[in-house]
Amino acid sequence: MTADFLIRNAELVATCAGPGPRVGAAQNDISALAGASVAGFEGHIVFVGPADECDRAINLTSTAQVIDAYGCTVVPGFVDPHTHLVFGGDRREELRRRLGGATYAEIAADGGGIVKTVAATRAASEHELIEGGRARLAEMLAFGTTTAEAKSGYGLDLVTELRMLRAIRALTAGQPVDLTATFMGAHEVPIEYRGRRGEYVKLVIDEMIPAVAREGLAEWCDVFCETGVFTPEESQAILEAGARHGLKPRIHADELGLSGGAGVAATIGARSADHLIYVDEPHARRMAGRGVVATLLPAAAFFLKLGRFAPARMLIDQGVAVALATDLNPGGGFTTSMPFVMSLACFGMNMTLEESLIAATLNAAASIDRADTVGSLETGKLFDAVIVNGALADLIRVGGPVVRTVVKRGRIVP
Amino acid sequence: MTADFLIRNAELVATCAGPGPRVGAAQNDISALAGASVAGFEGHIVFVGPADECDRAINLTSTAQVIDAYGCTVVPGFVDPHTHLVFGGDRREELRRRLGGATYAEIAADGGGIVKTVAATRAASEHELIEGGRARLAEMLAFGTTTAEAKSGYGLDLVTELRMLRAIRALTAGQPVDLTATFMGAHEVPIEYRGRRGEYVKLVIDEMIPAVAREGLAEWCDVFCETGVFTPEESQAILEAGARHGLKPRIHADELGLSGGAGVAATIGARSADHLIYVDEPHARRMAGRGVVATLLPAAAFFLKLGRFAPARMLIDQGVAVALATDLNPGGGFTTSMPFVMSLACFGMNMTLEESLIAATLNAAASIDRADTVGSLETGKLFDAVIVNGALADLIRVGGPVVRTVVKRGRIVP
Repeated sequence: MTADFLIRNAELVATCAGPGPRVGAAQNDISALAGASVAGFEGHIVFVGPADECDRAINLTSTAQVIDAYGCTVVPGFVDPHTHLVFGGDRREELRRRLGGATYAEIAADGGGIVKTVAATRAASEHELIEGGRARLAEMLAFGTTTAEAKSGYGLDLVTELRMLRAIRALTAGQPVDLTATFMGAHEVPIEYRGRRGEYVKLVIDEMIPAVAREGLAEWCDVFCETGVFTPEESQAILEAGARHGLKPRIHADELGLSGGAGVAATIGARSADHLIYVDEPHARRMAGRGVVATLLPAAAFFLKLGRFAPARMLIDQGVAVALATDLNPGGGFTTSMPFVMSLACFGMNMTLEESLIAATLNAAASIDRADTVGSLETGKLFDAVIVNGALADLIRVGGPVVRTVVKRGRIVP
Repeated sequence: MTADFLIRNAELVATCAGPGPRVGAAQNDISALAGASVAGFEGHIVFVGPADECDRAINLTSTAQVIDAYGCTVVPGFVDPHTHLVFGGDRREELRRRLGGATYAEIAADGGGIVKTVAATRAASEHELIEGGRARLAEMLAFGTTTAEAKSGYGLDLVTELRMLRAIRALTAGQPVDLTATFMGAHEVPIEYRGRRGEYVKLVIDEMIPAVAREGLAEWCDVFCETGVFTPEESQAILEAGARHGLKPRIHADELGLSGGAGVAATIGARSADHLIYVDEPHARRMAGRGVVATLLPAAAFFLKLGRFAPARMLIDQGVAVALATDLNPGGGFTTSMPFVMSLACFGMNMTLEESLIAATLNAAASIDRADTVGSLETGKLFDAVIVNGALADLIRVGGPVVRTVVKRGRIVP
């Protein structure tokens, strides 16, 4: 067969073969091949297997690119299924203050916190939102992320939510990382609706969701289900309204307490429930029964100093498919690095190296309904791959030039 | 005055001015200057101050290098005062197994653990040790480390300990990072001396230390004081023997339990006590009284999943100067990145951003008796600096191309 791109003779190719997501104990199987090659043609994978067999099987085009991966490990391009990629403003000074002991309440009293990001995002032009997102995507790509989810949710009014989603659409076309867009008007109750939360929920359901759907700006609908933000009942109503307009449900669940989000996810069959720091076994079993992916965000717990991580081992033991994401955001999601998130999964959440890799690839793809096209190195899928300097374990040592080369659709990027 | 190197008009220059170490609450003061420049001549700093004043004060040589640091933050080159830089072999497979649930006892039963590194180091040539160390130093430099400590301690016999120290000496000359060498024959009791620990202590004291001193191969003597390794009495005897031969004392103390190491450090006036995960207030006060620097290694606690970090806040409150180091080593010290260590200090040990910066620069320099020449951006010191893309807070977000440029002795490196 013909190939125009070849990664030849890697020490190890961790194919992470599907079908995805891998559930429970199966998440520990990365389907690794030693001394293997991966060949592609026009952006898709045409061969994965032993290097010598590959050499016999393929005919390289005259302009084909060939990478010698001797001594390296090849893994699927990372999928980051939970990001707040697009926002206005800058809250790094707030981080400095928080580390100095200032409480969130003190920072909020000075106009900080999410309110600051909402104000800055409302004030930002679409061009400014695009340029900020583009810089962050370049970082993500450098760490091996080739597909990502991106949310609105810092507008909290119709016009800004639409502007954020249009910025995400523009970014989809303007750089290599494939994006899927999520409408998250229910990220927080905006200041002007404080004390009138019901009216804001009505605005989201009656005006925002139909407008987003009309323009075809989002694939997903998300909501922050938490005590003091949106109740389980409100969350369910919003996600069901989204579904009626063709937006698939996902949810911020049980981040700060066992507040009902995982239950909503199981009830409505959300594709993913995210955060889940306080989820318990009964809810995990309900999630497993409905095939809800648990998308865990240990970097958020780390940077917010929550003092605990999501119970990844329990979720896996209960048969839930676990995915990982950065939670990139201006208030506490500082990392763009999926390898760092994998490291926190291993050393903070007691996941195995193999489980963390599946969580960052195949299961992350499943979390955003892309397991049919990305998330593993299999014939027919997009040729999205990361060539790691050294062994699989080097991916998680947080230091060193771990990512040697990133491949997106069969081309070296950036 | 004449200058041949200039970092011009940084958003912020965190000079971290001494005298060092900064103790207790004073550790929170980084002596920052906004809109400042740093100029140097022949490897030393000749001016630090407001950019416009600098432009008037200096005459650039015709071959001077000038870096525009607009929008950037400039900090002193990092000092990494605790590394096991030189070793033979590879234990990444062991990491993978450990994350899969294998216990240290199981891994040791299969010939893993430090015993494996000792065997591989004894089998390695000096050239192989040098090349391994050189690769790790290149990584460290890329993350901004311009001065480091490096230990022997994987030979545990005279010939290999000397070979390790000669490798460190060779590395000192062969690349930009300045090194100080530590003899650590008392890193562990070698297999052939199991059950005869007293004889090994005698070997260290009577043969190894004199031989190391005779060749002038080390500045420091270190010992692993811990239950099951070396007792406080043995540790004190070894460090006192070192001191008689001109090797200054430092110590691995209270890493796995309150086992007496901090007490030994205070008793003999060691320059630094390292790890200190279990140190208590009375010992902290004794350390403060003797001016012992606490060199904390949160990456070791993270990668070994110890479940706790050293009590940095307590140490600072008790008036101890806190430094940070990577603890780079083959068994659990996977990171070469001082910025990641700073991040763990902030988010895991509740240090402020400013405290962590002082700990990685001025106080780290004090930990290895280099605060007179490096660790801060002050006139007369070596021009070792890191130009950070963005704000100080960007240093600790673990992701992104944080380090823009590394300067060693007034030259861009590598």
